Amino acid sequence: MRIAVLGADGYLGWPTALHLSARGHDVVAVDSLVRRRWDEECGTDSLTPIASMADRLARWQAESGHKIGWHQIDLCDAAAVDELIRTTQPDAIVHFAEQRSAPYSMISPRHGVETQVNNVVGTLNVLLSVRDHAPDCHVIKLGTMGEYGTPNIDIEEGFIEIEHNGRHDRMLYPKQPGSLYHLSKVHDSHNLDFACRIWDLRATDLNQGVVYGTTTDETALHPQLITRFDYDGIWGTVLNRYCVQAAVGEPLTVYGKGGQTRGFLDIRDTVRCIELAALNAPAAGEYRVYNQFTEQFSVLGLAEKVEHARAAHGLPTTISHVPNPRREKEEHYYNAKHQRLLDLGLEPHGLTDTLIDHVVQTVEANVSRVKRNTIEATIDWRKGGHVYAGGRSPALTALAGIGG
Amino acid sequence: MRIAVLGADGYLGWPTALHLSARGHDVVAVDSLVRRRWDEECGTDSLTPIASMADRLARWQAESGHKIGWHQIDLCDAAAVDELIRTTQPDAIVHFAEQRSAPYSMISPRHGVETQVNNVVGTLNVLLSVRDHAPDCHVIKLGTMGEYGTPNIDIEEGFIEIEHNGRHDRMLYPKQPGSLYHLSKVHDSHNLDFACRIWDLRATDLNQGVVYGTTTDETALHPQLITRFDYDGIWGTVLNRYCVQAAVGEPLTVYGKGGQTRGFLDIRDTVRCIELAALNAPAAGEYRVYNQFTEQFSVLGLAEKVEHARAAHGLPTTISHVPNPRREKEEHYYNAKHQRLLDLGLEPHGLTDTLIDHVVQTVEANVSRVKRNTIEATIDWRKGGHVYAGGRSPALTALAGIGG
Repeated sequence: MRIAVLGADGYLGWPTALHLSARGHDVVAVDSLVRRRWDEECGTDSLTPIASMADRLARWQAESGHKIGWHQIDLCDAAAVDELIRTTQPDAIVHFAEQRSAPYSMISPRHGVETQVNNVVGTLNVLLSVRDHAPDCHVIKLGTMGEYGTPNIDIEEGFIEIEHNGRHDRMLYPKQPGSLYHLSKVHDSHNLDFACRIWDLRATDLNQGVVYGTTTDETALHPQLITRFDYDGIWGTVLNRYCVQAAVGEPLTVYGKGGQTRGFLDIRDTVRCIELAALNAPAAGEYRVYNQFTEQFSVLGLAEKVEHARAAHGLPTTISHVPNPRREKEEHYYNAKHQRLLDLGLEPHGLTDTLIDHVVQTVEANVSRVKRNTIEATIDWRKGGHVYAGGRSPALTALAGIGG
Repeated sequence: MRIAVLGADGYLGWPTALHLSARGHDVVAVDSLVRRRWDEECGTDSLTPIASMADRLARWQAESGHKIGWHQIDLCDAAAVDELIRTTQPDAIVHFAEQRSAPYSMISPRHGVETQVNNVVGTLNVLLSVRDHAPDCHVIKLGTMGEYGTPNIDIEEGFIEIEHNGRHDRMLYPKQPGSLYHLSKVHDSHNLDFACRIWDLRATDLNQGVVYGTTTDETALHPQLITRFDYDGIWGTVLNRYCVQAAVGEPLTVYGKGGQTRGFLDIRDTVRCIELAALNAPAAGEYRVYNQFTEQFSVLGLAEKVEHARAAHGLPTTISHVPNPRREKEEHYYNAKHQRLLDLGLEPHGLTDTLIDHVVQTVEANVSRVKRNTIEATIDWRKGGHVYAGGRSPALTALAGIGG
């Protein structure tokens, strides 16, 4: 199967490209490399030193014998997307290529608008190009569980059956996203649904939870194949950030009460879910949504898991509750379905002390690279800008256009 | 009350600005004048000759004694929007300033992307600017009934109470929009809801039906105050198009079976609804949705009403069913609520033979201006481009980037 992986330079795009290549698929990697530029802009960096795309691709071929194609393309360039789709004729497209940080989208008005335009236009260009140049291609799009927010009813997988005034319909599940970034994914979901209804495309929307972990079978083969590891207040996901905080002897900072509950999954399950989706294409005209996570935790519960795993090695950990820079419910009902990928054969990795140990070890091995002033570079959800008037991250304070 | 009317050069924006001014409000008119440029691009034109904005404003002051402020601004220019909001400090903003044609959004990939970017970015810029410079300002945004599509259950006003697995929540009503334009309005609705939830803005989203008619009390005062009248296949609304077809002796073209049912309202009710919304601002943090229409008709039923009104004057009319260029259900359940504006005091004008007579008279008075090759410039919903291979509208055929 020929599969184009859009966003192949990212935290998950790169391991996905490797996994699909290892499994014998003909992979074409696509990225604008903007993520590396955003790091420069924000003063952030991957904890793990990542190789250039040229070195990554050469190393993969040397280690595996498989060749991955490569195109440096910005999806907002419609002509370049058309050329890509027309000439490569992929059977499936895996689309990770979006600005994927909620805090980034809330830094300033410019960052919010940039996020929505980048994500909506990139996805629209892909859909229109598939319609016109490869209409049977299966579009596999990364959405997020954050599109749903925290409703007071069970979260279904994309659609909900509604009985109302004695009549019935199956409708898109109503969304309540929590940031301008999450909104961009909701917009994408509606555009995807439309493309299937009106143009008979086939699409899978993977509403993914929060991913943790750093290593897959393929990235472990060589140091030049590792993927990025984000721990800072903009790009970092919560478990990774906790492990870095612990490693440098700072308290794990839990936003507010910490009852915020989300779906989580191991990076090894991400790459497997993508392949499962690709191997099971929907019919023409079908818009399919899978909730892609394996377990639910509260952010406080997750901090306690880190504390527990470290205690087993005699390491002390402090948990500190800090004012929540986001505007979100800190105590709420949360029960999200995630059955459909299991039905396709996913065998989940649960979050174990062993996995946390592994992340902690990765952090310890790179502790000299930790940029401490970026860990808590939290963005004020209400007004934009840096939440700490002291300005621990000068780059970010400048970005937000506010005084120190 | 100081009210900024964004999109004040448009079919409805202009009569709304006049109506609010006549009612004693301090009106600031804002427009980029792009609608006139789009006419040039599409080879379309208002049937009624409309005056320049400078002449309109001078004439209004001469006729009414009221002065309307004027700013030529593109809402995609964030700095200009900030300057406008910061310096005018409106109590309310009425936001009509979007690309509002479904067919235009389906001409080509470029037109679809342009529509979504223009509409989403313009609205985001307004919301962010209100947040930062006039947080108490009431944002009144024009949405469309087309956001809902044609679900098999009753259409509520923006929200629906859902019982699911023994639990309950009030959620955004699920949307099933039918074009890239309608999608842009759905995206806007989600951004508005977010701005109220997270930034405590106050917003009213007016999901408007299809407007008919040409004249309000204020536009009738002088020929330089009339508003535009669109009848072509891109910008025209269905009743206006039927009346033009009848006037030039062509059959009224009903798309497909004609069972497509929509909400309709008189232009005089539009301007009244806007004022009612402005006079009854929601609380801070409240996102409020009103369905703004007064009656439901099928497009075939509407054609038969035109036929009936003309027959009373001895005029013959032919109705012709043509292949539907859109992809939509031609027979479906449709029951949309529209109670909340009535509760605020709206006294609807029903669609009468008298009104149709008036539209027919307007057409007869301007029949020499009809550009016949634009009436059926229908766009293919499936592939983009002009649906008639013969290319009756050369400008449009060129736009869509396809051969004649």
